[in-house]
Amino acid sequence: MAKQRNIIVGQSGGPTAVINSSLAGVYKTAKERGFHTIYGMLHGVQGLLDEQYVDLSTQIHSDMDIELLKRTPSAFLGSCRYKLPEIHEDVAIYERIFEILDKLEIEAFVYIGGNDSMDTIKKLSDYAIIKGHKQKFLGVPKTIDNDLALTDHTPGFGSAAKYIATSTKEVIRDATGMTYNDKEAITIIEVMGRNAGWLTGATALARTEECEGPDLIYLPEVVFDIDKFLDKTKELLAKKESVVIAVSEGIKVADGRYVCELSGGADYVDAFGHKQLQGTAAYLAGFLGKETGCKTRSIEFSTLQRSASHMASRVDVNEAFMVGGAAVKAADEGESGKMVVIDRLSDDPYTSAVGIYDVHRIANNEKVVPREWINEEGDYVTDAFINYIEPLIQGFYQPFMVNGLPQHLVLKK
Amino acid sequence: MAKQRNIIVGQSGGPTAVINSSLAGVYKTAKERGFHTIYGMLHGVQGLLDEQYVDLSTQIHSDMDIELLKRTPSAFLGSCRYKLPEIHEDVAIYERIFEILDKLEIEAFVYIGGNDSMDTIKKLSDYAIIKGHKQKFLGVPKTIDNDLALTDHTPGFGSAAKYIATSTKEVIRDATGMTYNDKEAITIIEVMGRNAGWLTGATALARTEECEGPDLIYLPEVVFDIDKFLDKTKELLAKKESVVIAVSEGIKVADGRYVCELSGGADYVDAFGHKQLQGTAAYLAGFLGKETGCKTRSIEFSTLQRSASHMASRVDVNEAFMVGGAAVKAADEGESGKMVVIDRLSDDPYTSAVGIYDVHRIANNEKVVPREWINEEGDYVTDAFINYIEPLIQGFYQPFMVNGLPQHLVLKK
Repeated sequence: MAKQRNIIVGQSGGPTAVINSSLAGVYKTAKERGFHTIYGMLHGVQGLLDEQYVDLSTQIHSDMDIELLKRTPSAFLGSCRYKLPEIHEDVAIYERIFEILDKLEIEAFVYIGGNDSMDTIKKLSDYAIIKGHKQKFLGVPKTIDNDLALTDHTPGFGSAAKYIATSTKEVIRDATGMTYNDKEAITIIEVMGRNAGWLTGATALARTEECEGPDLIYLPEVVFDIDKFLDKTKELLAKKESVVIAVSEGIKVADGRYVCELSGGADYVDAFGHKQLQGTAAYLAGFLGKETGCKTRSIEFSTLQRSASHMASRVDVNEAFMVGGAAVKAADEGESGKMVVIDRLSDDPYTSAVGIYDVHRIANNEKVVPREWINEEGDYVTDAFINYIEPLIQGFYQPFMVNGLPQHLVLKK
Repeated sequence: MAKQRNIIVGQSGGPTAVINSSLAGVYKTAKERGFHTIYGMLHGVQGLLDEQYVDLSTQIHSDMDIELLKRTPSAFLGSCRYKLPEIHEDVAIYERIFEILDKLEIEAFVYIGGNDSMDTIKKLSDYAIIKGHKQKFLGVPKTIDNDLALTDHTPGFGSAAKYIATSTKEVIRDATGMTYNDKEAITIIEVMGRNAGWLTGATALARTEECEGPDLIYLPEVVFDIDKFLDKTKELLAKKESVVIAVSEGIKVADGRYVCELSGGADYVDAFGHKQLQGTAAYLAGFLGKETGCKTRSIEFSTLQRSASHMASRVDVNEAFMVGGAAVKAADEGESGKMVVIDRLSDDPYTSAVGIYDVHRIANNEKVVPREWINEEGDYVTDAFINYIEPLIQGFYQPFMVNGLPQHLVLKK
C-alpha cells in the first residue's frame, strides 16, 4: 500500500477571533493540494501526546462550514499552553511525538500559535533534522498581542484592535453622557498585553471625527509613574467632566512591580511562568477615587477582546485564512522550520502578501511598540502608530446570525 | 404674535444602546406633527434647571442624521440621575421648571427614562394639574433592566440581552477552548441588574444548537445560597472541564447582604440611594478558586452591556423609535401624565403595538422575574422565560462603519 500523504494541524496559546480562519485556510489548501487525511490535534501538542486528534473531514462538510469556521472564535480544536522541553532534557517526549506522527503517516505538521508555539515548531523541526525524520513543520502566526518579530503584524491583532476601539468608543459615549457639571467621573479601561502595548494603543483609534478618544494611554513599554499619572488626571479633570484612561494590564512601576501587584493580587502563574494579570484598572480606579474624590469605574475588556468574532476585521479574517493556506503550500513545497509572515506591501491602498521566515529567527523574540511610536510623555501613541494599525481593522465580516445570535462551528466529539 | 407650539425632550437615568432611537422617534414625529422648535434638555431636568438646552434642528440635519442617531449609544443629550423632590417639599423647583417651560413656549414635555424618570413625569404632570399649567407630560420607557411595570418589556432591554447573549457565547467558546483534561476552569460572568434578573437570565439565550450555554444562572429574585452554589459547581467540575456561571450583580445572601459586600466593597451610593455594585463575580471567583483549587476568572460585562449599539437588536431599535414617536402623538392629542408602553400582540410571528398608561400606575413599581420563570433550584431560567425574551433580540441593525469603526452622532455645543 502506498504511503498516504496526511497532514496534521494544531492550535496553541491564547485564542483569537480569527484563529479558526487560519484553520479553515489550512483545511481548504490541504484539500486542494491533495492531502489525504487532514487531522486536527485536540488541544495542540499536549493532546497529541495523548493521541487526541480528529479527522477534520468529519467536522467540516461544506464550503458553508468553512465560512462558519472563519466566523468562530477561540480554538476550534482546543488549545493548550504546553511548553516542549529542550531536546536534551527529555528525548522520550520527542520520540513519542514522532511515533504518533509516523503512525498517522503525517507528512506536514502545521501549528497555529504565538511565540511559544513557534518555539515548538523550532524544536520539532530541529529534532526531525537531527534524527532524519521527513515531516515538515510550519508555523502560522496567531496572537492578539502582535508581539511576534519579523511579521508586519499578527493575525488576530486587527480584530482585537477593532473590538477594543469599538468598545472604547462606546464606553466613552456612555461615560460622557452620564457626567454633568461639577460631577466629574473617571473611567479606566484595562487592555490585554503583558509586555507589548499594541492592543492598549489601539484604543487611540477611538479618536475620530466625532469622538475625542481616550485622554491618556499607558503602555507597558514605558515605566509607569503613578505621581505623574495623578497630576495628569487632575489637570484633565479641571478641563473636562469625563476622563477616560486606557492602561495595559502589564504596566509596571519603576521598581519593576506590576501595578496590579501593588494591591497584593496576581498570584496565578501559567505553565510558561507568566503571571496572570488582572486588576490594574481596578487598582488605579481605587487610587484615583481616593486621591481626587471623583466617581471612578474600572472596565476590563477581559477575554472578549480575543474572542469577539462578531466584531472581526475583514482584513484580519482574510489574512488569517491566507497565512493558514500559505503554510500548507510551503510544507507541500518542502519547506520546514519556517513561519509564514505577513509583509505589508503598501499602506494606501493597504495590500499585503505572505512571506516565509526561518523560525529560529523568530521564536522567543517579543516585538514591542517602538519608543518613537509613543509620545515623549509616555501617555499616548503617535500618528505613526495609528497609521500602522488603521488598515488592519478595516472591513466588517458579517456574522451568520441564527435566532438573533452569531452562529459558530463547534467540534463534534 | 401667535404662541409657538414647541416641544422639549430629555433623557434620564442609565443609558441604553437605543435610547437615542427613541429621541429620533420624538424628533421625527414632532417635525411631522408641525411642532415649531424641538428642544433637547441637556442632562435632563437637572440641565433644564440650569437652562441648558439645545434646538435639535441645529444638531440633526438630515434623514441620515436620524439614522445615525438611532445607531448612537448612550444619551445623545446627556443624562442625569436627578430626583425631583416631592411637590410639598420644594415648590420653588417646580415653579422654576414651569417658568423655563413657559419662556420656551413648550406645549409638550417628553422624558425618556426608567422608573425614576416616570416619577418625574408623574410629579410634573400632577403639579401642572394643580396649578393649571397647560403643558403635557409624557414618559417614554427606557431601561436595559426591563423592570418597568405594565409594559411587556422596555426599549433597551432587547439590545442589552442580545449583546449579553452574544458575549456569553463568545466567552464560553473561549473558556472551552482553553481547558484540557484535568485542568478544569471556572468562569463567572457578572451581569447588571440590581433587583431584577432579566439581563442575567438573558445569558440563557446562549444555550443554542451549538453552545451549551452557561451552566448555572443566579438571579437576584432568589436568595443566594453560597454552600449550595459551591456544591453545584463541584458536581459540574466532576463532569466537565469548563464551567461557566452567570450571576447578577444584585444577588444577596439570606441575611440581606449583597454578595459583593461580603468582601467589604461597594461603598459608592448614587443620588437615588442606590449602592453601586461591582465585584460580585470577582468575589465568587476568589471563593471558588480557594474552595476548588481551580483556575477561575471573573468577567464583568460592565457599561458595554448598556452601550454596545454595534450589537443592537433590530426589533429593539424599531420599538424604541416607535415609542418615542407615540409619546409625541399622545401629547399632541392632549394626553398627559402618561407613559407609552409596548404591548405584545403575538409571539410567532412576534408583533407589538404601543399602548398608553397612566404614569401613576407605573412609577416606582419594579417588575422582577416571576418566580415560576426561574427553576425550582433557583439556578436557571425556564423555557417560558426564554420564549419571552427570544423575539426581542431578533434582527441586526448594521452600524454605519467609518474607517473600520461604528460612527455615532455626537452633540455639537
